[in-house]
Amino acid sequence: MSETVKKVAVGIDLGGTAMKIGIVNKSYEILAQTSIPTNAERPYEEVIADMGETALALFAQNGLKVADCDGVGVGSPGTIDSKHGVVLYSNNIRWDNVPIAKELQKYLAVPVFVQNDANCAALGEVLRGAAKGCQNAIFLTLGTGVGGGIVIDGKIFEGGHPGGAELGHVKCGSEGRRCTCGRADCLEAYASATALINDAKQMASEHPDSMLWALCDNDLEKMNAKVPFDAADAGDHSGRILVDNYIQYLADGITDLANIFRPDLIVLGGGVCAQGEKLTEPLNQYLRANCFGNTVAYVPRVVVAENGNQAGIIGAAGLVWQ
Amino acid sequence: MSETVKKVAVGIDLGGTAMKIGIVNKSYEILAQTSIPTNAERPYEEVIADMGETALALFAQNGLKVADCDGVGVGSPGTIDSKHGVVLYSNNIRWDNVPIAKELQKYLAVPVFVQNDANCAALGEVLRGAAKGCQNAIFLTLGTGVGGGIVIDGKIFEGGHPGGAELGHVKCGSEGRRCTCGRADCLEAYASATALINDAKQMASEHPDSMLWALCDNDLEKMNAKVPFDAADAGDHSGRILVDNYIQYLADGITDLANIFRPDLIVLGGGVCAQGEKLTEPLNQYLRANCFGNTVAYVPRVVVAENGNQAGIIGAAGLVWQ
Repeated sequence: MSETVKKVAVGIDLGGTAMKIGIVNKSYEILAQTSIPTNAERPYEEVIADMGETALALFAQNGLKVADCDGVGVGSPGTIDSKHGVVLYSNNIRWDNVPIAKELQKYLAVPVFVQNDANCAALGEVLRGAAKGCQNAIFLTLGTGVGGGIVIDGKIFEGGHPGGAELGHVKCGSEGRRCTCGRADCLEAYASATALINDAKQMASEHPDSMLWALCDNDLEKMNAKVPFDAADAGDHSGRILVDNYIQYLADGITDLANIFRPDLIVLGGGVCAQGEKLTEPLNQYLRANCFGNTVAYVPRVVVAENGNQAGIIGAAGLVWQ
Repeated sequence: MSETVKKVAVGIDLGGTAMKIGIVNKSYEILAQTSIPTNAERPYEEVIADMGETALALFAQNGLKVADCDGVGVGSPGTIDSKHGVVLYSNNIRWDNVPIAKELQKYLAVPVFVQNDANCAALGEVLRGAAKGCQNAIFLTLGTGVGGGIVIDGKIFEGGHPGGAELGHVKCGSEGRRCTCGRADCLEAYASATALINDAKQMASEHPDSMLWALCDNDLEKMNAKVPFDAADAGDHSGRILVDNYIQYLADGITDLANIFRPDLIVLGGGVCAQGEKLTEPLNQYLRANCFGNTVAYVPRVVVAENGNQAGIIGAAGLVWQ
């Protein structure tokens, strides 16, 4: 039977809270998927056993066999040694030198590929998403941090050595904001959803009459990245300043990336990208005006990601057929 | 006779003042070279005619024939369409849409390749220089401007479209300094030799007792990028501040590039790199302390370029055998 089944890949999106596991065909359609808790505080062998056994169960439930599977891709937060399939370090899941590929092959005797999750998401958008068909694309995820993914000639470019493509860790502002990486003034410290939320909390504290308060139910703990945009839309001055500052930081970071990579497209993912054109329209305006050689050279467009919460699975599975 | 001659390439380093033209063998040794004035204000056809005829004369003088030549590489300032061999725009030589490759082939009926000059210099350092044998290297030239070159997997990465690899045009400082590209606060506005010279002139004006004055013969028009380093060495406070500030800006820019590309090496060229370890030692210290994931990931070293004023010829010739 299995010879008549088209080949599939497994994509695993390893997160701090949950692991999403999916079976993907060569059109990058998800045939089946499930999500299980990571419980990252356990020994890594147990986490990876859950990964492997859940994938095997998913095969069985869908009439597939390991023989139908060309390989497994895992997208993990942190710094990855993709050559050896090792998570060198992840602050998010508190892993240190974890040989995922080797461990997972105990359950799934197929090739296993491991990459940084933002790199996977970038690849996913190129394979089946906002940058479909692009040979060169830059992906920025605006979430808890700012993750980066680079696609060159249709493939992930992770840098010459582990620790590359850290596009959130380029200098951006000058307020001396400490970044999670230890350095000051990284893009992540200004353009992550976390940074926007912190800025909004501070702005609200300083402006008791701002609409920011009503929009988070008068509870700053309920502040999220949507609130400043909603406040700005409703004409709130504090909200407008927050959004304008946020976009300015992001626009500068994106212009740098355009001047370096001159990609076909720049794709924004993560929670903040739900703002759609409220975000991309001013970014594109800034880019057209400030990109190096904007009158003679190609100016890439900024668009929002399309794969949403399937991005991790699709991109990880894509590692198998890279 | 020519069948017994090993194959050569022509490398042409097109500058605003002079064109250097060399014949290079496959070991990237320059077999013969000459330099002629560019006289860039002439019609481009005349400039390119000079290029072609000078190369032909160089062949004849050295017992070579066009049949011995695998091709010609031209390194040009400005934004290049390398696919079509066109200089889209160069502020330096005031060219606009000049089809060098097509024009030069009227004189030399061999493949002609055109690239940005900093890209060529980067390639040259990888082929025969400070980064010899490296698969991944970043090159920054600290001169009139800040030029950038990126080598990935042993080949020039110029970006997905013309206008990429502009590593001098990433945001650096926050003083609002206007950059030649039109944007404010680019690395070029802080870390070029020009910027250092301007800063030194201003510092001297504000500090009449500084050694900066004596070191430029009490004539600010004689200020150069070496003076602040010499003043700092001699214990001059103003010189020390200039050098420390300059290195801080450069260190931040280089750390960004390390976080993005994680190359084998970062190579510095241009006039300022004559400072050698006075420049690279503090840069390496900063990079080791501030590079993302510095405890687990690879931290590239910063070194100075080795090809000096032959860089342009070697790198341009290298285009032929890429």
